[in-house]
Amino acid sequence: MKLFSAGIDVGGTKTQLCLTDEQGNILEEHKLETQLSRDPGKFFNWLFDELEQSCIRNGGTLSSLKGVGIGFPGVMNERTGTLTSAPALNWPAVDIRPLIAARYPGAAVLDNDVNMAALGEHAAGAAAGSGHFIMITVGTGVGSALFLDGRLYRGAGFAAGEIGYLIVRPGEYTAAADPEYSEFGPFEMEASGTGIGAKAADYLHSSGRPSIIRELAQGGPVRAEHVFAAARREDEAALQLLNQAYGHMAAVIKNIVLTLDLELVILGGGVVEKNPGYIDEIVKRVSRYTPHQPPAIRQAVLGNRAGAIGAAAAVRSKITSGH
Amino acid sequence: MKLFSAGIDVGGTKTQLCLTDEQGNILEEHKLETQLSRDPGKFFNWLFDELEQSCIRNGGTLSSLKGVGIGFPGVMNERTGTLTSAPALNWPAVDIRPLIAARYPGAAVLDNDVNMAALGEHAAGAAAGSGHFIMITVGTGVGSALFLDGRLYRGAGFAAGEIGYLIVRPGEYTAAADPEYSEFGPFEMEASGTGIGAKAADYLHSSGRPSIIRELAQGGPVRAEHVFAAARREDEAALQLLNQAYGHMAAVIKNIVLTLDLELVILGGGVVEKNPGYIDEIVKRVSRYTPHQPPAIRQAVLGNRAGAIGAAAAVRSKITSGH
Repeated sequence: MKLFSAGIDVGGTKTQLCLTDEQGNILEEHKLETQLSRDPGKFFNWLFDELEQSCIRNGGTLSSLKGVGIGFPGVMNERTGTLTSAPALNWPAVDIRPLIAARYPGAAVLDNDVNMAALGEHAAGAAAGSGHFIMITVGTGVGSALFLDGRLYRGAGFAAGEIGYLIVRPGEYTAAADPEYSEFGPFEMEASGTGIGAKAADYLHSSGRPSIIRELAQGGPVRAEHVFAAARREDEAALQLLNQAYGHMAAVIKNIVLTLDLELVILGGGVVEKNPGYIDEIVKRVSRYTPHQPPAIRQAVLGNRAGAIGAAAAVRSKITSGH
Repeated sequence: MKLFSAGIDVGGTKTQLCLTDEQGNILEEHKLETQLSRDPGKFFNWLFDELEQSCIRNGGTLSSLKGVGIGFPGVMNERTGTLTSAPALNWPAVDIRPLIAARYPGAAVLDNDVNMAALGEHAAGAAAGSGHFIMITVGTGVGSALFLDGRLYRGAGFAAGEIGYLIVRPGEYTAAADPEYSEFGPFEMEASGTGIGAKAADYLHSSGRPSIIRELAQGGPVRAEHVFAAARREDEAALQLLNQAYGHMAAVIKNIVLTLDLELVILGGGVVEKNPGYIDEIVKRVSRYTPHQPPAIRQAVLGNRAGAIGAAAAVRSKITSGH
């Protein structure tokens, strides 16, 4: 009898699924359009239908599974199984375990998506073998997962790693004065894709000087990709804007590494993946800080697959370690 | 047969010793002038002579001890027992375990002094019952210990919590341009007693305006205590200088609490103990940061006794948990 582990990464638009064997070899992996519903029960019915099909294609059924790991875009209390703060899914606080139990009686490991991605990079990616690392994702916002003393660290209320809200300037007490950015924190407004775009728009608005950013945006909203593209063409304003963003990211990395004595930093997310020079710029700045030994800084290698791979790995390790 | 646990906190000038029974009740506690020697072996001979006397006074001998816990002012690799970076003791890197074994064959639990103090506050002080807290000591420098998921967190290289070196302004790469302060980090130069004194001296040097700080220093070196005393008399410059120091401390606390999702912050050390308003000023500033729930912020209650009490507690818990 075959024993599979399933890993699922739920996103607002795409859901990634993977099936592994007992050794962690990937048997099947695919990306689905998330069939989102106001009724979370309907969503899980759809999800387990898909998972069942996947098991059948590999010669088994849902009962061939050792367990299912699922990562969610929100705050997951992994002990009670309650999901909160998941705006991408547009659900109220949901107790996930009974919804899964209605379709699947086996073990379910639940966590947030960034934690699962960190487990994925640890199991089969850029963090293999490390006992002390942070994984930072830079995209629309900035998020992170902490892996300390050989295991995920979740914090007193399962909200560890929410670094988007880090204070950048002491005494600037409110997160974002502009309601358009009310869901973003001070550090995100410096270093995320959203923040870089907003800073560039401000700059173009207040400065009369020419910049390629303006041409690239073509009168539409200014986005981070325009700033990175302009910087590749040596545009002065774009280089300055990115220097600010890199500087804030490097200082935050330095401070977290120093506080936690980490050996490794993994950087991922759209902004990092789409801009090949990103990692080098950060390494350069972090290594300038004295007197401590700089950590290894590497790019995440699993991309959007990390969460599902990590969720399947979480199933295998939970069951092995008897938690 | 009585079974004691001994806790020792080694300092450059004073060494604190405590003896507890199996339940953690303190049988004896005292402060000794540290008999420092270039030869660490001589130091441990003296220390165990003192400890033996303490056991005899309580009706036992060294063999009545379950174990000895010792906190050191330096970086302690608690697995190998090697002490490094201990300028207060003026020793090179020392392998501590054989020196102890020469006098005492039982269990020895070794750690740095701040970690032991955090264990003390957790065992019998301001952090009783907490599973996720940071203890920050503000004195000549700034140090901290992290207690995460119900245990001390030490980091990849036993250097976690060295927050004195936190970067305060992105891009300020060197720790201290002034060689007088070369052992202090950027955050320490804002928030420690040393930093507050140095900032005040700079202010008095560059400003011609009158300040009570100048009178209090009486032509000698300006120290933090002069600044706090002047602030109590509503001196404008002193209030501004402390506002800066409090602001940096509050921002660092907010950022660490946010990153690690901590429920509690314990503040101790000379600067906190000697200035009754300190905690309130920090609470006020941390609670202004939105949108997250502020942590509890409390003063350490065990003072200089915390390290020895914690070291004895470490012996009891190590032996109970079978590590």
